[in-house]
Amino acid sequence: MVYRRPTVLTAGLAVATLLAAGAAAPADAARDAAEAWRRAHETRILEEFTSFLALPDVATRQADIEANASRLEEMLHARGFVTRRLSAGPGTPPTVFAEMKVPGARRTVLYYAHYDGQPIGQAGWLSPPFQPTMRTGPLKDDPETIADWRAAATPINPDWRIYARAAGDDKASIEALLTAMDALKAAGRKPSVNVKLFYEGEEEQGSPHLAQIVSDNRDLLAADLIIMGDGPMHQSGRQQVNFGSRGVLGLTLTVYGALRPLHDGHYGSWAPSPAADIARLLAGLREPDGTIDIAGIYDDVRPPTLSDKAALAALPPVEGDLARSLGIAAPITSARLDDSYFRPTLNIRAIHVGDTGPNAANALATQAVASLDFRLTPDERPERVRSLFDAELARRGWFVTDHAPDLPTRLAHAHIVRVDWDPGASRAVKTDMDAPAARAAVLAIERVEGGPILKVPMVGASSGIALLVTALNAPMAGVSIANYDDNQHAENENLRIGNLWDGIAVYTGLLGDLNW
Amino acid sequence: MVYRRPTVLTAGLAVATLLAAGAAAPADAARDAAEAWRRAHETRILEEFTSFLALPDVATRQADIEANASRLEEMLHARGFVTRRLSAGPGTPPTVFAEMKVPGARRTVLYYAHYDGQPIGQAGWLSPPFQPTMRTGPLKDDPETIADWRAAATPINPDWRIYARAAGDDKASIEALLTAMDALKAAGRKPSVNVKLFYEGEEEQGSPHLAQIVSDNRDLLAADLIIMGDGPMHQSGRQQVNFGSRGVLGLTLTVYGALRPLHDGHYGSWAPSPAADIARLLAGLREPDGTIDIAGIYDDVRPPTLSDKAALAALPPVEGDLARSLGIAAPITSARLDDSYFRPTLNIRAIHVGDTGPNAANALATQAVASLDFRLTPDERPERVRSLFDAELARRGWFVTDHAPDLPTRLAHAHIVRVDWDPGASRAVKTDMDAPAARAAVLAIERVEGGPILKVPMVGASSGIALLVTALNAPMAGVSIANYDDNQHAENENLRIGNLWDGIAVYTGLLGDLNW
Repeated sequence: MVYRRPTVLTAGLAVATLLAAGAAAPADAARDAAEAWRRAHETRILEEFTSFLALPDVATRQADIEANASRLEEMLHARGFVTRRLSAGPGTPPTVFAEMKVPGARRTVLYYAHYDGQPIGQAGWLSPPFQPTMRTGPLKDDPETIADWRAAATPINPDWRIYARAAGDDKASIEALLTAMDALKAAGRKPSVNVKLFYEGEEEQGSPHLAQIVSDNRDLLAADLIIMGDGPMHQSGRQQVNFGSRGVLGLTLTVYGALRPLHDGHYGSWAPSPAADIARLLAGLREPDGTIDIAGIYDDVRPPTLSDKAALAALPPVEGDLARSLGIAAPITSARLDDSYFRPTLNIRAIHVGDTGPNAANALATQAVASLDFRLTPDERPERVRSLFDAELARRGWFVTDHAPDLPTRLAHAHIVRVDWDPGASRAVKTDMDAPAARAAVLAIERVEGGPILKVPMVGASSGIALLVTALNAPMAGVSIANYDDNQHAENENLRIGNLWDGIAVYTGLLGDLNW
Repeated sequence: MVYRRPTVLTAGLAVATLLAAGAAAPADAARDAAEAWRRAHETRILEEFTSFLALPDVATRQADIEANASRLEEMLHARGFVTRRLSAGPGTPPTVFAEMKVPGARRTVLYYAHYDGQPIGQAGWLSPPFQPTMRTGPLKDDPETIADWRAAATPINPDWRIYARAAGDDKASIEALLTAMDALKAAGRKPSVNVKLFYEGEEEQGSPHLAQIVSDNRDLLAADLIIMGDGPMHQSGRQQVNFGSRGVLGLTLTVYGALRPLHDGHYGSWAPSPAADIARLLAGLREPDGTIDIAGIYDDVRPPTLSDKAALAALPPVEGDLARSLGIAAPITSARLDDSYFRPTLNIRAIHVGDTGPNAANALATQAVASLDFRLTPDERPERVRSLFDAELARRGWFVTDHAPDLPTRLAHAHIVRVDWDPGASRAVKTDMDAPAARAAVLAIERVEGGPILKVPMVGASSGIALLVTALNAPMAGVSIANYDDNQHAENENLRIGNLWDGIAVYTGLLGDLNW
């Protein structure tokens, strides 16, 4: 695909030779349909997409998320879908469910994506997160802003990028699928299977109501394959399909000092320091190479199968170029990036103690707070990780509580840590790559691509998909289209235009030719 | 002194028996003069004081600090002082210098205090920091606010407190001295020595221009004794005099990760974590009991003399009650609080990495920042501590720099820490408690008190006084009047009214009877 040239990692990559040097890809009707439609409607596609991105979509604001759901339903109705909202109750973010039954189809495929975005409070947004802004490239290249891109001549430069929250994570895959429906229709074709769409509205909040929604609608959602459209592409820029994702389990730690702030000259040598205590606590949980120092944490880790190992070995080496592009002298581990997903990770998302800058004071803070998450592998159960974690803290001399300590508790325990577990923990999920449905998904995309794609046994991130896959007892395939450097979950999230174009082709192939 | 009853620590204290059970203190003219004046003018004294506190006095705002200096000069002129401003140049906070020559006086005493306050950005102020608010007691007792205290009958309850920035640190000692001048005058008396006042305007900013001001005005400032009016009283509530203070040396550490934020599911097992790195760095520098793990850091520490040890042993034990009142199960060390000041302390003032709360993201931050300070003992030189610190970091594998690393630096070093030393480091200072001037100061206060006071060899905090004492080559005595629980350097700073009354008496004794 001409538009899928890597934009950051250009050296040392074993980019598939059959796509190089102008070798012609085998003819493919879906690809032709996608490209014909897209070339004729580039501005219109981007107008729909940016209009969708302009809707604030942080799921903590119910009115915002309702507005997104309404817009999404309009977009789906325009493509002939029947829609309904699935919700866990009033005031909770709805899942937008849509269905298209295809006469004669034997299989049903459920497509999952989420239309909510990560919180936006990060410093450093160059343009407001819900004011989609076109720029000529990635920020590292000091791109120009294209204020009048709607008036630009087409074809639009595929290296341009749209900057907005949710551009890559995850509205791009929704726009790609809906545009693929347009392309199929224009080519006089129908989907090859019955299509169900499951567009979640609170994935970035940890999917707190997903379990109930799935449980309440099991028959409605039943499918033979789940295709998940979330997450970025492979760092090599090549199309990948993944067959699993890690689980996630978040928590907040609070460590306590004196009841009031204390002058650190008078009391620093004598009174407990929440800052020093939380540093020691955190440093003790993680070794420099990322190994987790919690007894029993690796007991339930399932090693990669031979099939996983073969797929991992076939992934192009990206680590060296990736490290250079990120300004990293050395990763913390010698493991390949994708290999590392077969082990759990303990991340420290944030630490906050005391004031800095103009509010800095020579004081001992009364408490220190850290935000952590575990990324879990398939057989690890969140409830067991919770109890291993608590037990480890207790073993290290901490009194573990789930609420703010009262005075008697403070006076009884020298080292108190409050542990607040995030709601919405999710387990990992993993599909056998050799399952017929999984092979069919790979084949459909490879036809569009004109050659082999990358098969990733499991991605490092997490998704509500795990719950869905488990509940529906169906295989899954994760199809990502966003550029890997899309700053998802951070400021200046963006989507490369060429990635949207390629995504439309991929979805056209999946919708038009997927069958088994 | 009837007003100096401890307000927090009431149990287990060896409060001087001669003040207990109504035992009559020896007659003292200065005390009588102070009490007579104060009883007749309580509201007027508090009006002057709160009006002074209402002036914002964070020294980063030059206009604010100038307004304070002007008000202070007015207050001094009203007492017959000749004043002048000493400054290191335009746009820098002035020191207000004042002088009163007394015919026939053989000695000259320089009184030091500072009229600027700590920054005010801490969360949790119950009333605006520059809107002095009278409440019926300490916050822990859920005090009532007395909006109309100016109309309250006198005597005003000495347990009431004024809440405002700088109430205890350090405008109280200025108000006490000036009111003592009024009391002496009303009694027809004059100071026993020539009086010089040195009121600094940027102590809470680390006294960046003090060295130059002192150096430029050495003859003007010359004195036989320096009395420093800063810092809180002993935790027992008893009057104390101290003869030294520790130095301070602040710094900011910045640890670097990737150039852009990374999704912690995709990259957390592979990419450097600034949060984990700074936790490990900090945890390695400080043991749980506060011992500093920096090679050579204790080489220059001077042990207490026999005289110091005797004074330390005579201090009432406050640690148990203090810990209970602070909600601390156990201090980090078995050392007595005042004993601990004979060793340096490494404080972690703040740590900040990533976002929490509504802005939390599952991302690896690009950097982590920590703010530290060292409290130093008399023979420790800041420049040596700086080099020991840098050497320790290097020994632990860190590449130490004083500026943001560029890309080649990032790619060359896996562990980079930027160290920014605060301006205005100060050395510790310590006077021999047996020096005649020091003994005279103790005697003058003991006459007012009617019995022995506490002699503290060295306080844990730091002050610009060190530089002044060193430059003028004069002995020093630190006379504190603020309640020890005045929340100095934090939100809800406050002064107990009874402490101001007692402070007026102490200063009346010092001004009226100090001689040797």
